[in-house]
Amino acid sequence: MRNILIIGAGRSASSLIQYLLNKSDEERLHVTIADLSLELAERKTNNHHNATAIALDIHNTADRQREIQKADIVISMLPAHMHIEVAKDCVAFKKHMVTASYVSDAMQSLDAAAKENGLVFMNEIGLDPGIDHMSAMKIIDEIRDQGGKMLLFESFCGGLVAPESDNNLWNYKFTWAPRNVVLAGQGGAAKFIQEGTYKYIPYHKLFRRTEFFEVEGYGKFEGYANRDSLKYRSVYGLDDVLTLYRGTIRRVGYSRAWNVFVQLGMTDDSYVIDDSENLSHRDFTNLFLPYHPTDSVEIKLRLQLGLAQDDVIWDKLLELDLFNPHKKTGLKNATPAQMLEKILADAWTLAPDDKDMIVMYHKFGFELNGVKRQIDSKMVCIGDDQIYTAMAKTVGLPVAMATLQILNGNITTPGVQLPINREVYLPILKELEEFGVVFSEIEMPYVGYNTPLL
Amino acid sequence: MRNILIIGAGRSASSLIQYLLNKSDEERLHVTIADLSLELAERKTNNHHNATAIALDIHNTADRQREIQKADIVISMLPAHMHIEVAKDCVAFKKHMVTASYVSDAMQSLDAAAKENGLVFMNEIGLDPGIDHMSAMKIIDEIRDQGGKMLLFESFCGGLVAPESDNNLWNYKFTWAPRNVVLAGQGGAAKFIQEGTYKYIPYHKLFRRTEFFEVEGYGKFEGYANRDSLKYRSVYGLDDVLTLYRGTIRRVGYSRAWNVFVQLGMTDDSYVIDDSENLSHRDFTNLFLPYHPTDSVEIKLRLQLGLAQDDVIWDKLLELDLFNPHKKTGLKNATPAQMLEKILADAWTLAPDDKDMIVMYHKFGFELNGVKRQIDSKMVCIGDDQIYTAMAKTVGLPVAMATLQILNGNITTPGVQLPINREVYLPILKELEEFGVVFSEIEMPYVGYNTPLL
Repeated sequence: MRNILIIGAGRSASSLIQYLLNKSDEERLHVTIADLSLELAERKTNNHHNATAIALDIHNTADRQREIQKADIVISMLPAHMHIEVAKDCVAFKKHMVTASYVSDAMQSLDAAAKENGLVFMNEIGLDPGIDHMSAMKIIDEIRDQGGKMLLFESFCGGLVAPESDNNLWNYKFTWAPRNVVLAGQGGAAKFIQEGTYKYIPYHKLFRRTEFFEVEGYGKFEGYANRDSLKYRSVYGLDDVLTLYRGTIRRVGYSRAWNVFVQLGMTDDSYVIDDSENLSHRDFTNLFLPYHPTDSVEIKLRLQLGLAQDDVIWDKLLELDLFNPHKKTGLKNATPAQMLEKILADAWTLAPDDKDMIVMYHKFGFELNGVKRQIDSKMVCIGDDQIYTAMAKTVGLPVAMATLQILNGNITTPGVQLPINREVYLPILKELEEFGVVFSEIEMPYVGYNTPLL
Repeated sequence: MRNILIIGAGRSASSLIQYLLNKSDEERLHVTIADLSLELAERKTNNHHNATAIALDIHNTADRQREIQKADIVISMLPAHMHIEVAKDCVAFKKHMVTASYVSDAMQSLDAAAKENGLVFMNEIGLDPGIDHMSAMKIIDEIRDQGGKMLLFESFCGGLVAPESDNNLWNYKFTWAPRNVVLAGQGGAAKFIQEGTYKYIPYHKLFRRTEFFEVEGYGKFEGYANRDSLKYRSVYGLDDVLTLYRGTIRRVGYSRAWNVFVQLGMTDDSYVIDDSENLSHRDFTNLFLPYHPTDSVEIKLRLQLGLAQDDVIWDKLLELDLFNPHKKTGLKNATPAQMLEKILADAWTLAPDDKDMIVMYHKFGFELNGVKRQIDSKMVCIGDDQIYTAMAKTVGLPVAMATLQILNGNITTPGVQLPINREVYLPILKELEEFGVVFSEIEMPYVGYNTPLL
C-alpha cells in the first residue's frame, strides 16, 4: 500500500478524498485524513476500509513530523499560510507534496532543496489557481506549436449558484467564503493590459467596467477585473501580448447592483461602526445617506444613487430586506463589510437542496500565418449536492489526480511548481473530463478589443 | 533678557519670529532661532539685534539639551513627530513649551510630569488646530454662560488663494503642502453626526456631499467633510450635540471638478504606475480610461464621467493640460497621486506676487430660553506677501502670543493642553484682531439641517 497523508478535511477536501478512496483498492492506496477535528476527519473517511482518520494539530511538531514520515506523499489542504511547516518537513523527510494554493515566497524558497532531493512540490492545482492554468496553457501551447503568436488572453472564473437552484433576483448565492465576496476587489486598483496599454480601475469603478460573454446552454455572464491580471504574464510566456485580462464571473446585472453597496460605502472593512449591535438593517443603510428632515431612507437612497423605483436594482435591495427597521445583525464592533455580510448571508445562503456551479471562460487571440484568429474555451461544472459541490470537485479532483500521477511516476519533474507543463496538464485535463469538467472550444474570427463599429 | 528658543525656521515660523522680534526690546526678549540649516535660521533673524541664529540637529542630544537649558521657554515648529525629544528635555530642565501640532499620545503622556513641575505645555495653538479651538470655545462658553444648550456645531477652515490673485478656473492654488491636498480625505470614511445620527461618507463620495456658505465681501464657499468630525466632541463638551461636522473649505465648484480625479483613480497613492517616467500627461489620463479603437482620450473621459463639453469642469481639465501628448512629469516609479501632484503643481503654484487667504467659518446652533437660535462666526485673513502669508500669520501669531503670555505669567495652568480655556483664548483672540484676524458674528434664526421645505 502507498500512504497518502491529507492534512485538512474541510469542504474542499470532499471530492479529493472520495476520488482517492474510490481508487484505493485498484491503486493500493491508504489514505490518512488528518484534521484538528477528529470528528470531521472521521466523517470524511465514509468508513472506507482504506482510510484512517486522525486528529492532528499541525503546530505540534512531533505529531506532524511522525505522520509525514509515515506517508509517501502529503496533500496539504490547510489555509495557504500554514503550508510552510509541512513543506519543510517534506523536504527533510523526502516526501512529495501537493497543494491547491498560490506559491508563497516561503514555498518558492524551497525550490532548490526540492529539486536536489528529486521531490515534486506541486502547487496551484485546484480550480483557480489550477484548472485555469492547465486549460489555458493547453491552448496556448497548441497555438505556439502551430507557429501562432499570442495577441490576447482573457480569463474569467466564478463560483455561482446552479441554474436549477437560482431563485433570487441577484442570481447569486454564497458558494464559498462570503467574506471574500464582500471584500472582492478591495486593496488597490485592478490592473491589466488592453491593446498594449496599461489600464487601472479604482475599486469604486470596478463593478461598472464589466465584460460580457455567453455560454451556450447557460446564458449570459459578466466579468469584473481581478486585482492583478498580470500575475502570470511571464509564467505563461505572454510578456508581449497586447491584451491580458483576468476577471471574476457573475450573472449579468449582479455587478451593477453590487455597485450600490460600493458607492454607499457598505463594503468598507477599515473602520468599526459606532453602536453597530443596536442598528437595524434600516439604521445601517441610513448611516451612508445624508440627513433629511422628511425624506424616508428609501427615497434618500434612490435619490443618492439615481435609482428609479421600477429599476430591478431596487427590487434586489428590497429582496435583501435592507430597509427593515426591526431586523438587526446584532454584531458588536462590526465594520460595514461585516454588517453587510450578515445581511447578505440571510438571503444568499444555499438551501439544503441547492447546487452550485463553476464557470470558466478563456479567450485566446492569436495570429497564425498572417491571419488573426480567436479561440474561446468554456467550461461549466454543476455540483452533485452540498458535499460534492462543483467547488469541491474542481478544487479537489485535480489535487487528487496530480497526487496519484506523482505516486505512479508519471509526473516526475522535481521542484516547486505550477501545473503549466504538458506532463502535468495533459493527463489531468483528460481525466477531469470523465468527471464532467469539460472545456468546449470554439474558433472564430479575431474580435479582441478592436470591435468594428457598427 | 528672557530667552526664547525656536526650533525649526520653516515657512510657518516667519510671522512668529517677526512678532517676537518686534516686541523684543519692549519685552526684553532674546530669540534664538535654531534650524538644521544655519542659512535658513540666519535669514529669519532679519539681522535683528535681539536674535541669534544657530545650526541645530535635534537628533544630537548634547547640542539639543545645551540649547534647551539656556532657554526660558521653547517653541517647537518641527514636524509633529519630532517634538517628543524636545518635550522630554523641557520636562527634565523645567522649561515651558509651545507647539502648533496635534497632541500625540507621547506628548499626552508627559502631562503628569508637566503638572508636577508647574510647566505649561501648550499645543494645537496654530490655525487648525488652534484658532479654530479658540474661536469656537469662546462662543460655546458664551452660549453656556447664558444658560444655552448647544444643538449644533459645524466648523470649516481652508487655505485658498486670495481674491486678487485668483486667476484660474479652479479658484485654487497650492498655499500649503500640495501632497496633502492631493491625498485629502483618503484613509477611511469621513465620520460625523447629523441631527443625532452617525453618518459615514466613503472617500469616493466625499466631494459630492459638500455644504455651502457665504462670507460677506468674499462670496460663496463650499466645504467637504474632514475624516473625523468627532475628534473634539468631548474636549469641547459637545457629547450631547445633535450635529457635529468639521470640513475643509474650497471655492464653489472645486469639489465637483476634483471628484473627476477621485472617480478616475488619479489620487490613488497605494501603487506604482508601470513606466511612469515615460508617460505624457495624456498617457497618464488614458491609464484610467477603457480602451477604444477610435475614440480619443478626451471623448473617452467625457463619456466615462458623463461630462458635457460645455461643462466648466471640462475647461478646468483643459486648463491643467491633462491631455497634452508631449508634456511628461518625468517621475520614476510614481504613484497616480504623485503624478497628479506634479501636473497640478505646474498650474497651481503661486506666482511671486500672489497672496494667499485663510477662511474659517463656524455655525453654532443652540436653544436658549426655549428658543432655537444660531450664530455664524466668520474670519478671513489675507497674506501680506509670500513670506508673511495668511498661513504663516494664522499659524505663527497665536504661537508667539501664547509664548509671551506664558513668559509674562498670564497663562499659568500647567500641563499638556489645548487653548480651550478662557485664560488662554480671551487675550490671544483679542490680540489677533490687531493683526487682522477678526471674527464677525451674525445671529440668526436656527436653521440647522431642518431646512424648511420651500
